[in-house]
Amino acid sequence: MTQRSALLTTLSGQASDRPPVWLMRQAGRYLPEYRQVRDRAGDFLTLCFTPDLAAEVTLQPIRRFGFDAAILFSDILTVPWALGRRVWFVAGEGPRLDPLNPADAARLDPACTVERLGPVYDAAGRVRAALPDDTPLIGFAGAPFTVACYMVHGSGSRDFASVRHRAFADPGTFASLIDVLVAATTDHLAAQIAAGAAVVQIFDSWSGVLAPSAFARWVTEPTRRIVAGLRARCGSSTPIIGFPRGAGPLVAGYVQATGVDAVGLDTAVPMPWARDVLPPGTVMQGNLDPMALVAGGTALEQETDAILTAMAGRPFIFNLGHGVVPETPIEHVAALVAQIRAGKGIDRGTPSSPAAA
Amino acid sequence: MTQRSALLTTLSGQASDRPPVWLMRQAGRYLPEYRQVRDRAGDFLTLCFTPDLAAEVTLQPIRRFGFDAAILFSDILTVPWALGRRVWFVAGEGPRLDPLNPADAARLDPACTVERLGPVYDAAGRVRAALPDDTPLIGFAGAPFTVACYMVHGSGSRDFASVRHRAFADPGTFASLIDVLVAATTDHLAAQIAAGAAVVQIFDSWSGVLAPSAFARWVTEPTRRIVAGLRARCGSSTPIIGFPRGAGPLVAGYVQATGVDAVGLDTAVPMPWARDVLPPGTVMQGNLDPMALVAGGTALEQETDAILTAMAGRPFIFNLGHGVVPETPIEHVAALVAQIRAGKGIDRGTPSSPAAA
Repeated sequence: MTQRSALLTTLSGQASDRPPVWLMRQAGRYLPEYRQVRDRAGDFLTLCFTPDLAAEVTLQPIRRFGFDAAILFSDILTVPWALGRRVWFVAGEGPRLDPLNPADAARLDPACTVERLGPVYDAAGRVRAALPDDTPLIGFAGAPFTVACYMVHGSGSRDFASVRHRAFADPGTFASLIDVLVAATTDHLAAQIAAGAAVVQIFDSWSGVLAPSAFARWVTEPTRRIVAGLRARCGSSTPIIGFPRGAGPLVAGYVQATGVDAVGLDTAVPMPWARDVLPPGTVMQGNLDPMALVAGGTALEQETDAILTAMAGRPFIFNLGHGVVPETPIEHVAALVAQIRAGKGIDRGTPSSPAAA
Repeated sequence: MTQRSALLTTLSGQASDRPPVWLMRQAGRYLPEYRQVRDRAGDFLTLCFTPDLAAEVTLQPIRRFGFDAAILFSDILTVPWALGRRVWFVAGEGPRLDPLNPADAARLDPACTVERLGPVYDAAGRVRAALPDDTPLIGFAGAPFTVACYMVHGSGSRDFASVRHRAFADPGTFASLIDVLVAATTDHLAAQIAAGAAVVQIFDSWSGVLAPSAFARWVTEPTRRIVAGLRARCGSSTPIIGFPRGAGPLVAGYVQATGVDAVGLDTAVPMPWARDVLPPGTVMQGNLDPMALVAGGTALEQETDAILTAMAGRPFIFNLGHGVVPETPIEHVAALVAQIRAGKGIDRGTPSSPAAA
């Protein structure tokens, strides 16, 4: 990794006229070359655990669009799988797991995580070797709360009411599951860094379902421990991006308390507000609505311009506020990258946007 | 309605040592007496449209718990039904509608809304006649965006991606549907006021899925028009509560721009934050997690206490941040009401809570 990387420069706290850009789920079904590999792999987890295939799909969007970072093709549910839970994917419905009673968390052994996830680190090494020098690899993991949601509920849910109930009714037992996940997640991220990831992102996709006190206990505190654990083991040279989706007004406290180097903001966050309330120097990432990318045209241009304008002069990484969806037209992604690279949002005087209203 | 109503006193901007309390979906399946009536009615919409049954279930929670307000038993999808759309409910799955292409919005005739919803106003009148003098009746409607989500998508959804896409891709056409709903919703709320509702609440259950620019256009502006329309027709003596669920940092701008008299806050909103950023004098309502009410015990007491403490000295209505769920133990509801009536949160000096961290 050289110092020429736009992403790492931004993550060091420097603003740029043309922010680096990558997209969550940039390797995915909207790409025909991905669908080919996916069909060849058959099963989704097989794709994650076959290093040459996982590396190939990780590299595809870099070749096509020249994004400023690659994100390892994998899944947040590899960790529960490594902890011995059964994980499978139902086409069109999402993940399924054998539901876990948090009282059985003591039987999970986080010590095996890295051993079982060897193919993931193998894939990371292959990607790193194949990437251009100035393009960093981002490793990632699900945050403990989000992963616990899937483990306990056994599938996706609109609001994970059953999990919130258990956490209120028996917080000590729920904490024992979170503790296992803090350990396993820290190990998993450290191993990705060792394999070549220059940045890691912690996805808390479901943090927004929690009340504020629960957010503090199940989102902020476990993330703080992971950040501290990674710094102790890997030093401070690998930036950590936290993504507490749906955190809303709690995002400022999350940034301060966890010590993340940068924060991913979801689609609902008004960027002028984030700019004003986050600690000075906070590196921000986000937050175009993936459906604006599907729509394209004027809506895409205006939404993108508003974000660039609000973030002008700040250390900022352009991204979506959620993952790329399968129906996204490839040409809209190309247009988005071109608009960002054209440096819109520069020299506009006082940043302002309709979102500030 | 007399001036002794705790709810109306609070809505006039006065703080109280013991805030008034009512709960969203306080009439519902957690009550055995509700399930009896529900079984008798058979179909859910039949229950909504049979005045004596709708009135009966509206009154049940008042008799049992002495809440400070009754909310008319009805559904936000009565408005699309009155506009001629087919609406039905699938047990355990929620509402279904024949999906509407927004381009066909011109064929919907809002003029018939009130005529077709006569049984709803009949129920409101019966409730008003049966309620204690000091217990106001709350009327309600879904906000245009939320109702449009169900009409266009045809069912519930985690994030209404298809609706967001249409709104980005063809905002003019989507606006034509919103316009119809602004007219129908204003008529429907005015008719409930005429029938005896002393307060109305506008539920925007899905406003949180929108990016900020879309929130301004599809949530704030239509709500502003409804508020202005109601004031023009019914005067300013009927308070209007807006509930933009998931608005996050956008809630302050929503309150100022719409002109609502009070704002409902969802479970994710930190009340100390709301207290600090909302315009001074804003009447706040919320926001206990319904799953804390299911859990009961220490969690319920602590969550309730944190809210009461944060809101001490402010005009505040205690409520949940989302609706009561069917598995809620009745005795937990009784304990909640007792805790609020005991006046906890008083004389604690500087308001503070863990949620402020």
